Amino acid sequence: MMKRIEVLKESGFSEKGMQKFLIHDSPFFRVINFNFKSGQELGIHTHDVEGQLSIVVLEGEGEFLGKDGLTLPANTGDVLISDIREPHGILAISDMRVIVTIAPPV
Amino acid sequence: MMKRIEVLKESGFSEKGMQKFLIHDSPFFRVINFNFKSGQELGIHTHDVEGQLSIVVLEGEGEFLGKDGLTLPANTGDVLISDIREPHGILAISDMRVIVTIAPPV
Repeated sequence: MMKRIEVLKESGFSEKGMQKFLIHDSPFFRVINFNFKSGQELGIHTHDVEGQLSIVVLEGEGEFLGKDGLTLPANTGDVLISDIREPHGILAISDMRVIVTIAPPV
Repeated sequence: MMKRIEVLKESGFSEKGMQKFLIHDSPFFRVINFNFKSGQELGIHTHDVEGQLSIVVLEGEGEFLGKDGLTLPANTGDVLISDIREPHGILAISDMRVIVTIAPPV
């Protein structure tokens, strides 16, 4: 079955912290929307499993965070691809919406 | 290794037809950017394999196409989830950029 999710309507922002909205979870992949107010972050982390993830910046400006202090620009339309094992994170410079896809789901 | 792709810089539009840009391909998933000028479409199709796909509308307005003439709005921030086996397609109403993720890649 096809399923449509209106991410801009389903999820918002909070001054209290990053907002997380599960779009989809299946044996094939997990798709999650994260919204950040300016200055909020998803701290750098890793999971010790096989697989890869993508982060699509739907709107806003920030930084992708990697190991050893690596930072890469994360602006609207940018996509990050990373092994799940590789340390990764996000820091928002403006309000920012991203979509993370994890395959296979961990 | 982390890899960053600036989709808005890497790919554009053509009056000649839909533009396709391969963002990433691995044993875990394939990530593809499609850009449509207003009126262009990715015709409804299917692949007879296991797995699911997501379509994220990065910008623009259009319709997700499904079987038996089904149409669903496809606007900025909308996400479609579908089995790969399920007939699916996209019609652009305005210029439109989408990101398709296929897991596992077919």
